[in-house]
Amino acid sequence: MIDLALADLKFPPPRGVLRELVREISMVNFYPSGDYLELKRAFCDYLRPKVSLAIENVVFGNGLDEVIDLVTRVWGGVNLIPMPTFSQYSAAAARSNQKVISSGMLQQGKYELDFDEADLKRASLVWICNPNNPTGDLIPRRKIEQAIDSAKGMVAVDECYYEYTGKTVVDLVKDYDNLIVLRSFSKNFGIAGLRLGVAISSRENIMKIEKIRQPFNVNRFAEKAGVIVLRHADEYKKIWQRVLKIGKKFAAEVKKMGYRPFPVNANFVLVDFLDERKASEAYLKLKNSGIKTYPGWSEEDFEGDLNQHIRFAVGAESDMELAVKILKG
Amino acid sequence: MIDLALADLKFPPPRGVLRELVREISMVNFYPSGDYLELKRAFCDYLRPKVSLAIENVVFGNGLDEVIDLVTRVWGGVNLIPMPTFSQYSAAAARSNQKVISSGMLQQGKYELDFDEADLKRASLVWICNPNNPTGDLIPRRKIEQAIDSAKGMVAVDECYYEYTGKTVVDLVKDYDNLIVLRSFSKNFGIAGLRLGVAISSRENIMKIEKIRQPFNVNRFAEKAGVIVLRHADEYKKIWQRVLKIGKKFAAEVKKMGYRPFPVNANFVLVDFLDERKASEAYLKLKNSGIKTYPGWSEEDFEGDLNQHIRFAVGAESDMELAVKILKG
Repeated sequence: MIDLALADLKFPPPRGVLRELVREISMVNFYPSGDYLELKRAFCDYLRPKVSLAIENVVFGNGLDEVIDLVTRVWGGVNLIPMPTFSQYSAAAARSNQKVISSGMLQQGKYELDFDEADLKRASLVWICNPNNPTGDLIPRRKIEQAIDSAKGMVAVDECYYEYTGKTVVDLVKDYDNLIVLRSFSKNFGIAGLRLGVAISSRENIMKIEKIRQPFNVNRFAEKAGVIVLRHADEYKKIWQRVLKIGKKFAAEVKKMGYRPFPVNANFVLVDFLDERKASEAYLKLKNSGIKTYPGWSEEDFEGDLNQHIRFAVGAESDMELAVKILKG
Repeated sequence: MIDLALADLKFPPPRGVLRELVREISMVNFYPSGDYLELKRAFCDYLRPKVSLAIENVVFGNGLDEVIDLVTRVWGGVNLIPMPTFSQYSAAAARSNQKVISSGMLQQGKYELDFDEADLKRASLVWICNPNNPTGDLIPRRKIEQAIDSAKGMVAVDECYYEYTGKTVVDLVKDYDNLIVLRSFSKNFGIAGLRLGVAISSRENIMKIEKIRQPFNVNRFAEKAGVIVLRHADEYKKIWQRVLKIGKKFAAEVKKMGYRPFPVNANFVLVDFLDERKASEAYLKLKNSGIKTYPGWSEEDFEGDLNQHIRFAVGAESDMELAVKILKG
């Protein structure tokens, strides 16, 4: 089975990273540091070209999922979620018995962030995923700034695919108290299995999360791996370029077949099959040939109206060529 | 610095375990399974000599800390905590803005579980740590049964040191709907750094936790390591015996000095220095000689009245001999 459903990075970390990780194995019996100082310092250094922040401006979590949960527990209550988007924003709200305002943003096949002013005034927490999962659309910076300006509550911008485009609003945490930016190490640095996510905001906001996180919420391996991968960031750039190239080639092939691929700004491609029956047929044909994908109509995976859409994670060249062959055949 | 403060297992896992773990490194880019089926099956097999349970009776967490948090979020509200005990029960309550009833249980240097009936009727969640951290005392099974019988709410029995004595009430989850038993892989199987804890209860209770845990709360390494260490459980027995032997020898030496060691039923020894000044002097003397310990009077680490007590994690033979030498000198 080729898994093009989960959008983990399909390429293992560089050899140097793996070698350094192996060295950590014999220390598994010891707790993580708990204060995660070295990791926080390394991450602030990594952010430096965009914004100069202190370690008190960042807090790490057990994958971005935990960070989303923590943010929801601190600022949630009424959660404004622009659909379709990543399922964990509303899942976290449901786990805490909170209210969700769903706002449809898909206009003529483009994800246009266009919040209702009344919704922005009602919500205690507004979610923005940029680039958006699963559509791949980039949200213009201006639109995000407008949302932050108008919002009564906190605006959380999930930039877990940041490394593929370099577009970020992380510098704005210096200007806005109601902005929290989220990053992950799964889709970019390829350590999804270790679980490492991070939130970036004002000291006051970060303190609120620090107060409710468990003392050892990030495991020792993720803690060490985070420092190691950031040290190897340059080597990863080649992987990110390769992923984008494979994704764009796949999108071009799909377009030639008459379907509508969404923009490729991350390690996945959403395809509109223009017809529910065609999408369902394509999904089953792929599945029966051993390729797992994410059907847009699965309630579990996505939030929103994507009944004729399939999301493909970007796999190796050969996997994507096989997918194209199956779709054509 | 020799760390006898944190009670992680001071001995690394057996070589065979480390070798199998190294093989998992190249797969860090993939998400954990999410359903943790293989781990659940392996753990049910491990429980089999005591009780025959199904995979629906267990749920894993990101260390026992997360399990404590989840249990608190589901059943907390009014948390009855027998002091002194592990700090995370009340810390989890505080993180969720819940009420705590503290009930002192230390009588003439022995931790005697003796709940007030009215407290048991008021509490939505009752915590019992067995053997108790930091006193080391074993709670008689009869006392735990009495608490479960009388309690209006859920009784959580933390057995994270179970492997050192083999005493458990896990079989009672078949008889009681209001019992949840907690286990960890830190103090026994030496993977504290990976974070792995587990809760055992009725299907209905476990389902409530499953519903609010994040989809990938246990990282891939902990998931794999859990299965591996359980397969090597026989090799660990020697480590546990060695730890108890070292701990008991240390307790005997401390007793000879005129201090009062608590029972050794786990990988730590609590020592009553019979005098606040003496305890404080001993703590500083050890610290200045490079040995970190847990002072009972530190609010952060323990809950309860332990102003003349120090907890020593059991380290290597040479570390404990050094500690004895420093205390004598």
